[in-house]
Amino acid sequence: MKKYQKEIDEWVKGFEEPYWPALSQFAHLAEEVGEVGRILNHMYGSKPKKSNEEKQELGEEIADVMFTLICMANSHGIDLDIEIEKVIAKSKSRDKDRFAKK
Amino acid sequence: MKKYQKEIDEWVKGFEEPYWPALSQFAHLAEEVGEVGRILNHMYGSKPKKSNEEKQELGEEIADVMFTLICMANSHGIDLDIEIEKVIAKSKSRDKDRFAKK
Amino acid sequence: MKKYQKEIDEWVKGFEEPYWPALSQFAHLAEEVGEVGRILNHMYGSKPKKSNEEKQELGEEIADVMFTLICMANSHGIDLDIEIEKVIAKSKSRDKDRFAKK
Amino acid sequence: MKKYQKEIDEWVKGFEEPYWPALSQFAHLAEEVGEVGRILNHMYGSKPKKSNEEKQELGEEIADVMFTLICMANSHGIDLDIEIEKVIAKSKSRDKDRFAKK
Repeated sequence: MKKYQKEIDEWVKGFEEPYWPALSQFAHLAEEVGEVGRILNHMYGSKPKKSNEEKQELGEEIADVMFTLICMANSHGIDLDIEIEKVIAKSKSRDKDRFAKK
Repeated sequence: MKKYQKEIDEWVKGFEEPYWPALSQFAHLAEEVGEVGRILNHMYGSKPKKSNEEKQELGEEIADVMFTLICMANSHGIDLDIEIEKVIAKSKSRDKDRFAKK
Repeated sequence: MKKYQKEIDEWVKGFEEPYWPALSQFAHLAEEVGEVGRILNHMYGSKPKKSNEEKQELGEEIADVMFTLICMANSHGIDLDIEIEKVIAKSKSRDKDRFAKK
Repeated sequence: MKKYQKEIDEWVKGFEEPYWPALSQFAHLAEEVGEVGRILNHMYGSKPKKSNEEKQELGEEIADVMFTLICMANSHGIDLDIEIEKVIAKSKSRDKDRFAKK
């Protein structure tokens, strides 16, 4: 993630207002998450159409959410690699006896 | 991202049900996004408390959202590095004349 | 709410699949909520445009969210009037000493 | 809705800051929507538990979302009855030939 965080940060630093205010970023995050919901309903809702086109669109929408999260992290000085490592470690430790192993 | 996608994938592959159904993943995503909203309201709402503790919690919540997105990408065979590169390129190209440069 | 719940229920009962599955309804809810976020960012984001048109659109988006919630309530046999009365009573009791009175 | 809108409005008008800023309201909305997602995953996720308790909790969470929407509408002078009537009319007109009738 460091690479993406740095790339985005260097780019937006060229603008007068590099990042939106936090609650505006959040409203945008919710908008992008809603787009993921829309495409998932196309794929898994009542009348599913599971074409390659839908999968491609899902990838784009997930990346839009990620982009918004990276901006949010950048404007708060959060190191995403450290945080993601911690979440993975936490999940592994919490779930290791919880689910049926193969 | 490849590293995280692979690490999570190898780990969950040991379980009988590696990934939740897509719409369950999405409901979980919305739950985690809501947690980000809660902490941002603590930080930027009417009675803000902008301690280091809040920033730490924000980092964790953002990473929880990222973790859920990685699971969603993994279960759809989406390469997040490719998709994020595309979003960054798209943003740079779209915004290059849109905002005031310094 | 009873009036709206009944009106929607009688109308959708005429269809083969009256309500979507719960998690599809939820994905749709998140999509509509994202639309509210989008319009609020137009109104209150970095470059606000607070025209009457925006306010009109906000009203429509809020009502879209309400419509989705009514469908969700209907498909679970939830009486929204009872639940809303309880939330109002709960808020009044919880907040009565919390905020500065005029 | 008029009754609820008025009841909430008269109550909060007694406080110094009757309604939160719009983007704070939205972050709170997303938090409450996330709670709906959490409870739906309990009910319909991989290991569902569909007790009466869950249904009761769903009713409360939906009403929490509605309460937040009513506050948002109130602080923008939106008449929810008018808007909901329009959404219902729009849905009826749009869907009337779209789904299989019984």
